[in-house]
Amino acid sequence: MKSSPLLLDGNRVAIDIKNQLVGRVSKLKERDIVPCLATILVGEDPASATYVRMKGNACSRVGIRSIRIELPEETTTEELIRAIKQLNDDQSVHGILLQHPVPSHIDERAAFEAISIDKDVDGVTMQGFAQNAFGIAAFPSCTPAAIMEILKYYELPIAGKHAVVIGRSPILGKPVSAMLLNKDATVTTCHSRTSNLEQHVRSADIVVAAVGKPKFVQGDWIKPGAVVLDAGYNPGNVGDVDFEACIPHVSAITPVPAGVGPVTITMLLKHTVEAAERSKR
Amino acid sequence: MKSSPLLLDGNRVAIDIKNQLVGRVSKLKERDIVPCLATILVGEDPASATYVRMKGNACSRVGIRSIRIELPEETTTEELIRAIKQLNDDQSVHGILLQHPVPSHIDERAAFEAISIDKDVDGVTMQGFAQNAFGIAAFPSCTPAAIMEILKYYELPIAGKHAVVIGRSPILGKPVSAMLLNKDATVTTCHSRTSNLEQHVRSADIVVAAVGKPKFVQGDWIKPGAVVLDAGYNPGNVGDVDFEACIPHVSAITPVPAGVGPVTITMLLKHTVEAAERSKR
Repeated sequence: MKSSPLLLDGNRVAIDIKNQLVGRVSKLKERDIVPCLATILVGEDPASATYVRMKGNACSRVGIRSIRIELPEETTTEELIRAIKQLNDDQSVHGILLQHPVPSHIDERAAFEAISIDKDVDGVTMQGFAQNAFGIAAFPSCTPAAIMEILKYYELPIAGKHAVVIGRSPILGKPVSAMLLNKDATVTTCHSRTSNLEQHVRSADIVVAAVGKPKFVQGDWIKPGAVVLDAGYNPGNVGDVDFEACIPHVSAITPVPAGVGPVTITMLLKHTVEAAERSKR
Repeated sequence: MKSSPLLLDGNRVAIDIKNQLVGRVSKLKERDIVPCLATILVGEDPASATYVRMKGNACSRVGIRSIRIELPEETTTEELIRAIKQLNDDQSVHGILLQHPVPSHIDERAAFEAISIDKDVDGVTMQGFAQNAFGIAAFPSCTPAAIMEILKYYELPIAGKHAVVIGRSPILGKPVSAMLLNKDATVTTCHSRTSNLEQHVRSADIVVAAVGKPKFVQGDWIKPGAVVLDAGYNPGNVGDVDFEACIPHVSAITPVPAGVGPVTITMLLKHTVEAAERSKR
């Protein structure tokens, strides 16, 4: 009889980590340090505004202070960078999150690079990317960090496994490939130009879906016993993986919602607390 | 009848590029700019001293000036960084090469990071690594650059191909994986902890061997028609690939010596000329 697969419950991981963070925040407050995340929202995009509000609420639930910088749509790159540098210099701020995408007239990369590496809790700077790729401590992007955290929480082995990452964005596919490689996985990075994608996925022990296409990964692509992590979040609460179709094949899988998503936002909180712990005040 | 494979002659690539460089150096000299590479050698290691001398000689053959900084074995990290910063500030120096490995008491990473990104012609800084991974212009490490140059010279297609890189060092396996990915290959990075290495190599259209083990890659691992690039250089002029055994299987292959090696040193020259072209003087 086939046993049912392990459901990688992101809410459970998130709750456990948040409980730990509450304790760490209390300890910081005993030292008169209040961890603080500054979020920056440029323009009026309603989805972005919602994300920023959710992040602020998540902060307050574990005792992290958050401050919201809201800049008008017509903000220039230079003005945005000036605002970021003020936050870099503000000793009461431990983490900086620039909600992206920013309006298209802004040089987003230049804005990201203005964030001090010590406060880059969202893992968007190139220096942070390189340090993570080289195995030198830095805050990684939050979704890759969440994927690694779920694997760790459920004690799923990585070393020697073949991981296939579908997607190569600078904040997801590329860093998660690097992080899996540093944990001794053999890593294949696939993307829109990959030929025989199914064949690559079929050989994977660990599949990370980061494509941004609903139900893209099919059940019959999955090697029996593989672990599937779905970083997708498409309209209608649908992931990049056809969850129902994969269930008969996987040994473990993240659902959508309540998989990678809740852990991602928790990683932002965790990085902010860590930044506060490292700071002098 | 099976046609014989294409021999990817690194000397030919190197000569063509050097001829171009001679012309570019002449043009720079008309503007009173003499491209200049500063090499830094710490300690007395005879092999390192030979490499530095070879690089200096290669410079002079295309008209690049080279200056040699020789520091004693007991140089501290701080002293080395001070020497690097002087070269950063010296407007007549366009490229800086720190011969490595440096003596073990020196923090090599800190020394690399002291090199200005504009003068990092050997592609050793983390910023340079990240920029290359993100597809933002920077000088890549010279061996990965040489591999990409050979593929380009011989017009071997990369997009949509499956590239298997054996090795994950910060100056070879990791950057060449990133560069192949940015040229739309599907990239698998293998290493010492990889299970079923042969199986991965068997599925590759492009194999990059960067293991540092003589004749490690076997002929019967090679998919018929694959392209093999051997970045190994082991004692006795032996590569990481069993060249003779691979010949019946490959469509194209680099020999050792006279494959990747001569192009690597040429990349250093090319980057130095490019740095000079970008500089004001």
